[in-house]
Amino acid sequence: MNNYKLTIQYDGGRYKGWQRLGDSENTIQGKIENALSVMVGQSIEIIGSSRTDAGVHALAQVANFKISDNMPESKIMNFLNHYLPPDISITEVELVDDRFHARYNAKDKTYLYKIWNEVYSHPFMRKYSMHVGKKLDIEKMKRACQYFIGEHDFTAYSNAKSKKKDTVRKIYSLDVEEVEGFIQFRVSGNGFLYNMVRKMIGTLIEIGLGEKEAEEIPTILLSKERVQTGGMADACGLYLEKINF
Amino acid sequence: MNNYKLTIQYDGGRYKGWQRLGDSENTIQGKIENALSVMVGQSIEIIGSSRTDAGVHALAQVANFKISDNMPESKIMNFLNHYLPPDISITEVELVDDRFHARYNAKDKTYLYKIWNEVYSHPFMRKYSMHVGKKLDIEKMKRACQYFIGEHDFTAYSNAKSKKKDTVRKIYSLDVEEVEGFIQFRVSGNGFLYNMVRKMIGTLIEIGLGEKEAEEIPTILLSKERVQTGGMADACGLYLEKINF
Repeated sequence: MNNYKLTIQYDGGRYKGWQRLGDSENTIQGKIENALSVMVGQSIEIIGSSRTDAGVHALAQVANFKISDNMPESKIMNFLNHYLPPDISITEVELVDDRFHARYNAKDKTYLYKIWNEVYSHPFMRKYSMHVGKKLDIEKMKRACQYFIGEHDFTAYSNAKSKKKDTVRKIYSLDVEEVEGFIQFRVSGNGFLYNMVRKMIGTLIEIGLGEKEAEEIPTILLSKERVQTGGMADACGLYLEKINF
Repeated sequence: MNNYKLTIQYDGGRYKGWQRLGDSENTIQGKIENALSVMVGQSIEIIGSSRTDAGVHALAQVANFKISDNMPESKIMNFLNHYLPPDISITEVELVDDRFHARYNAKDKTYLYKIWNEVYSHPFMRKYSMHVGKKLDIEKMKRACQYFIGEHDFTAYSNAKSKKKDTVRKIYSLDVEEVEGFIQFRVSGNGFLYNMVRKMIGTLIEIGLGEKEAEEIPTILLSKERVQTGGMADACGLYLEKINF
């Protein structure tokens, strides 16, 4: 079997997320599997590194799939890009070692979160960032970021629907910077629970608005009481940015 | 009367262009006039600097309007941004001299044109750039740009529907550069005919693809035979970038 690694960029706006759900066409995984199945003439399953939520974007999602044919990488890339809708692009195809597994071999993942922090909306980025009209206090948020770094039980930042038993994750870094009117958070970790990044950013926004104090984060983490969905940042500001293997 | 100058940013994607057409709601001018009329309780007309085509964007369109009330600039800005849809933003409101006229006082205008020049589409910029899958020859296009600079009769680059008698315009500069996978054209001039920029970019793309030679531009200009609409670059790649007064 030939094992191919795909690097994928997508605007998650009109999808129910990465993961194929039954027969639903409306997932990124489903769209790519359909295209591959047309290409090889039989049903193909792909393994994605991260199961991004509904509405979440990716700059470089990674997936792999195995087929018996040895096809040139460029041929696969051209076929998929021709067949896929313009909001999903394959930016790289690579024939890899047979043992490569996009999910199990992922060592760390980086997510980017964009906030547009002006009173008026951003006409071109309104679907690609969260609009927060009130001024956020960057210094307060910077200080708050430190409390998330390290290994913690993230039950408080998980979703009740998730059935994962292991809720301990390690955050390697979490930074915030201002870039041309946008406030950008970048978080790297060994893995993230369902909704975890959006709930973390939700708390950071509350701190930036003065509604919570940075020092409350350890208490929230230790409480293991789930942050409510109301305190969750919008899906449209979140991007899966990079996966290291 | 108090004369206010507005700076406006918009995603032109779902509009029939700047200029109000009869009762049509679906123009940028119409949307802003409606909002202003609600604000002051009577019908208000605004004067825009440039009549951008259907689907064309603006980073900094300028308009002015006169009202008898002296209202704080911030109040106007907040009202409009609250009332307008998120694809139209007012980025500045300024009380100006009574003689300021957004159209007559415009000295020069700059348009930006974005092309995404990769085989795959750009998921986030697909509505904000023209996708050209075949590689464009930048050096050829750079050379071709020079032929447009200066004062010319732009009948060949006008639209048959336009009734303007004076078809002479002066181009001050026209540059092309590569910026992170995008090819960006920036053109400044004392004015532009309807569809003129898109038709010029259309010719430059043909040159970049090797379908035309740079040296044909003077002949096309002198012929005064209209470039066909087929040779016109997509509206979604064009941005009104700056107006100097």
